[in-house]
Amino acid sequence: MERIEADYLIETAYDPRAAAEVMAGEQSSGTFVKVPGETAALKKRSAARLEKLEVVGEAAAASLPGAGGQGPIVRAQVTLSWPLANLGPSLPNLMATVAGNLFELKQFSGLKLLDIRLPPAFATAYEGPRFGIAGTRRLVGVEGRPLIGTIIKPSVGLGPEETAELVRTLAEAGIDFIKDDELQGDGPACPFEDRARAVMRAINEVAERKGRKTMFAFNLTGDLDEMRRRHDLVQALGGTCIMASVNSVGLAGMIALGRHSALPIHAHRNGWGYLSRHPLLGFSFTAWHKVWRLAGADHIHVNGLANKFSEEDDSVIASARACLAPLFPDKPCPIMPVFSSGQTVRQAPSTWQALGSTDLIFAAGGGIMAHPGGPAAGVAALREAWEAAVGDVPLADHARTRPALAQALETYKG
Amino acid sequence: MERIEADYLIETAYDPRAAAEVMAGEQSSGTFVKVPGETAALKKRSAARLEKLEVVGEAAAASLPGAGGQGPIVRAQVTLSWPLANLGPSLPNLMATVAGNLFELKQFSGLKLLDIRLPPAFATAYEGPRFGIAGTRRLVGVEGRPLIGTIIKPSVGLGPEETAELVRTLAEAGIDFIKDDELQGDGPACPFEDRARAVMRAINEVAERKGRKTMFAFNLTGDLDEMRRRHDLVQALGGTCIMASVNSVGLAGMIALGRHSALPIHAHRNGWGYLSRHPLLGFSFTAWHKVWRLAGADHIHVNGLANKFSEEDDSVIASARACLAPLFPDKPCPIMPVFSSGQTVRQAPSTWQALGSTDLIFAAGGGIMAHPGGPAAGVAALREAWEAAVGDVPLADHARTRPALAQALETYKG
Repeated sequence: MERIEADYLIETAYDPRAAAEVMAGEQSSGTFVKVPGETAALKKRSAARLEKLEVVGEAAAASLPGAGGQGPIVRAQVTLSWPLANLGPSLPNLMATVAGNLFELKQFSGLKLLDIRLPPAFATAYEGPRFGIAGTRRLVGVEGRPLIGTIIKPSVGLGPEETAELVRTLAEAGIDFIKDDELQGDGPACPFEDRARAVMRAINEVAERKGRKTMFAFNLTGDLDEMRRRHDLVQALGGTCIMASVNSVGLAGMIALGRHSALPIHAHRNGWGYLSRHPLLGFSFTAWHKVWRLAGADHIHVNGLANKFSEEDDSVIASARACLAPLFPDKPCPIMPVFSSGQTVRQAPSTWQALGSTDLIFAAGGGIMAHPGGPAAGVAALREAWEAAVGDVPLADHARTRPALAQALETYKG
Repeated sequence: MERIEADYLIETAYDPRAAAEVMAGEQSSGTFVKVPGETAALKKRSAARLEKLEVVGEAAAASLPGAGGQGPIVRAQVTLSWPLANLGPSLPNLMATVAGNLFELKQFSGLKLLDIRLPPAFATAYEGPRFGIAGTRRLVGVEGRPLIGTIIKPSVGLGPEETAELVRTLAEAGIDFIKDDELQGDGPACPFEDRARAVMRAINEVAERKGRKTMFAFNLTGDLDEMRRRHDLVQALGGTCIMASVNSVGLAGMIALGRHSALPIHAHRNGWGYLSRHPLLGFSFTAWHKVWRLAGADHIHVNGLANKFSEEDDSVIASARACLAPLFPDKPCPIMPVFSSGQTVRQAPSTWQALGSTDLIFAAGGGIMAHPGGPAAGVAALREAWEAAVGDVPLADHARTRPALAQALETYKG
């Protein structure tokens, strides 16, 4: 029988095995008050199973309020499994099963979903990324190095024509990838349709002259019908990417958008902090991103090294590795991790050393626009920094014959 | 100019006003590196504004890891506002704005969204609950008291016919409302269509004899096309309610389902723990539930007093009150709070005293099925307990002439 598996980090002042059994019960056929229908046969076919439990440490105090128990507070890694027959290969129902009514259980003063492993039926039911790394590279025409990207800034406030002017400058500068900010959707101050038309006019004109088209991720986040209409418009205008805030749109919306889309989907993870910032609550990136990847995301944000947020570098790299690791043995579905947040030439060597791959989008805002030589020099400097990194040459050495990189090193002190 | 407002609880070791300004900047036109386009005129029309800041306390240690700052750790309530022109009346874009990339900011060792206030344009753009309290009461035929409800248990494992048998027993017992468990969707072990047909056959037969139809909330959680098909089937079979796990389906999916639906939507909040359990991270129920209510939820889960989870009673009552409070002055949209989790006759008086309303669904599982007189006595006892509560009569007094309630008081010691 095929089973779904999920790994958790738990913290409990109960016997950890008994607490894990409550969790398995709550998320399958168990009831708090014994009911007549809960027969042995029913339990056999539908109960969640505690597959593994390993105590990993103790805690001096409870991490989250509201828990019961009198014993020492221990932390443990737990694996539960469920028969696929309980829910079928359905992503929304998977979430209700592996991440439903369990984070509030009194048994736990901490509970984090670390990973999920899905039977192949999910790979059949959901197409996953339509473009992924290879498809994105093909559309942009870049191989063997990261895509150099940026975000329209200021995030909001520019009108359609101002946005298009900035895009023109960046496209002329030879940038591979540009995205809307997640705050720029379809507000009256910069309506989606006007922005898309103005931006694609600029991109198409530059592409015609230079022979290579900058990929622009249009933020079409909205109600489902709006997102479909906006996708169709972008496609009709010759655009090559759409973007959505996955936590705002949600799973059923992203699945429907994925099935509709003929363009790569740039998944923005804003809101990730509320799902993850506490070390003993919510989701690990690994568990969380698998769902969006299977739903059809082609790129996903992972933050960046030495970022402006509270996330540690190790966590950023673990997320990026997760994006490149196979989702199923027969259907790997690798997607592009997107590095962003305070990125400059300085982070190229450390990112390369930690990840060992160039399959990523490296997005810099100020790291391009604030280059004293202008955006073209900003883009050139980032490409040169990645050449140096991949070739294992110190940035300063590589910069000797490359003025754009040299200027960048002076500007971004790191 | 119309503005969106959001209240937060923040914790910071920076100057709280400076930290709140970073938050306002990050969520509107601010940039970390100064860019050429950020003019005074642009800021004036698009910047988020810090409307109010009140320091409410100090903390001995940081609540969440990863924060910076050297000063004393203070907690403050902060109100930010945004021009509607930035995003328009769009719920998914609202989430990216008020609950996007801010929970991870280094400035904060705690950040919780407490409330949101929306301009009337949102009331025009979204219909809100189509049935709400009045429509639900009309369909069930119950006025002046709570709807007495239950959940099919075991949660998973029963087949369609076994489920229907249980429903028949409960409907015969005169129950107002029954729901699927959130773990029971459309698994191979109990396919939605077979379950819906079998359950509605039982409900319709009993309704024909007794003249009143039990409302059954069918859990149609799934991909959007599946949800629409399942809704249509339930409606065709004469069903009167559908249920969805809102955190699993997501906002775009719930909005699309709401626009499609001709039946009340029972919103299940499973997963709420990961959004709320830490007192300084994520969402308050008040803020969170407004979005689903506007998207079309007619009922929403609020846990119950003396529940089996980690939530305090005060928090449960605050959530229920939020459901009954007006959403907009001209469009109140009240919805039914659903009390559940270990509820019995014991909680009727305290729930009534704390809430002062009977506009709720009171759902008991073991509180009905484990009644020694059978489910009919279980249902009768709960109605009697609510009569006593509303009439301000002690349960024991009321039970003197009411054997069902008397037996319940013996069984459920509280």
